[in-house]
Amino acid sequence: MVSEDIERLITLLAKLPGLGPRSARRAALSLIKRRETLLEPLSRAMADAAQSIKVCSVCANLDTRDPCKLCTDARRDSTSICVVEDVADLWALERTSAFKGLYHVLGGTLSALDGVGPEDLRVPHLVERVRTGGVQEVILATNATVEGQTTAHYIADRLSDIDGVVVSGLAHGVPVGGELDYLDDGTLSAALSARREIG
Amino acid sequence: MVSEDIERLITLLAKLPGLGPRSARRAALSLIKRRETLLEPLSRAMADAAQSIKVCSVCANLDTRDPCKLCTDARRDSTSICVVEDVADLWALERTSAFKGLYHVLGGTLSALDGVGPEDLRVPHLVERVRTGGVQEVILATNATVEGQTTAHYIADRLSDIDGVVVSGLAHGVPVGGELDYLDDGTLSAALSARREIG
Repeated sequence: MVSEDIERLITLLAKLPGLGPRSARRAALSLIKRRETLLEPLSRAMADAAQSIKVCSVCANLDTRDPCKLCTDARRDSTSICVVEDVADLWALERTSAFKGLYHVLGGTLSALDGVGPEDLRVPHLVERVRTGGVQEVILATNATVEGQTTAHYIADRLSDIDGVVVSGLAHGVPVGGELDYLDDGTLSAALSARREIG
Repeated sequence: MVSEDIERLITLLAKLPGLGPRSARRAALSLIKRRETLLEPLSRAMADAAQSIKVCSVCANLDTRDPCKLCTDARRDSTSICVVEDVADLWALERTSAFKGLYHVLGGTLSALDGVGPEDLRVPHLVERVRTGGVQEVILATNATVEGQTTAHYIADRLSDIDGVVVSGLAHGVPVGGELDYLDDGTLSAALSARREIG
């Protein structure tokens, strides 16, 4: 007996990651109760995003222009390319402000099971970028999962015959603020074998 | 360095109950990646809801018309009114199909601390409905919390001088499928003292 318009709203909200049927109902109610402050602005923000957001043809970042703000920013170091699985990873790295180079978003990992090959991940495009672009370092920042590391190894292999390009990966180790007692064995072994002299 | 349009989308999504900053980012990305199948339909569904959803002037249910579908449904029993705190509670009761009467949504509970009085909860409106409408039973289905039960007692008191109206409350007891070992003491005592003869 719930109105069709509300039912449709709930069904679509339930498709968002992190929302199930129950939380989608709560979200729908909260939206309808806050019509002016939330429902209408969010509807407009979504319509605007659907209109304006493009996939950057260089790095596959999401932005309102193509090439994206990062690719066209002259202050960024174009000799260094950081390869990530997803736009979310690019955002995570950008929040740290620790990297000043350019990015290359793969859009996933290699997967024989799911039929994801190098072409689906824009690997040939990356090879071409590195080959033509005066790139000095490629940082493979895929996830530290089996799939992520397999993909990184494959890309490192594809880039190995290009002269003058250093291929690197993120360091493994103890997370900052992490307690040893709660760490998994793999991370702890990696941190131990990559130990560094102090002072 | 995230595009402003995406930033705005994330900020608004994070205001939904159940979504924090991190899950709002995931939701935004998921929306942008599923532009045709999710982002655009959801934006339209929200715009439609903002346009069409009204608060029923009789029972405060949410619907596309006023009075709502429930209040105008001739097959429903208008001699029985079920009083609930929120529209979500009305939806929950409707999903059971166990109640065929009408509803009255309070929109919260009495709270001296938050300055919520009987007028804010549409209690005078309920008293008027019961006094004028040929109502035979009022079921107080507020939550089994201190606030919900206080509100129920107050309403029962306000309705006590109207002749020919039975005021009732939901039964307390063991949830169907529930195990005694995991029940709190209050529920178990209530179930024991409200025990019923079998067969």
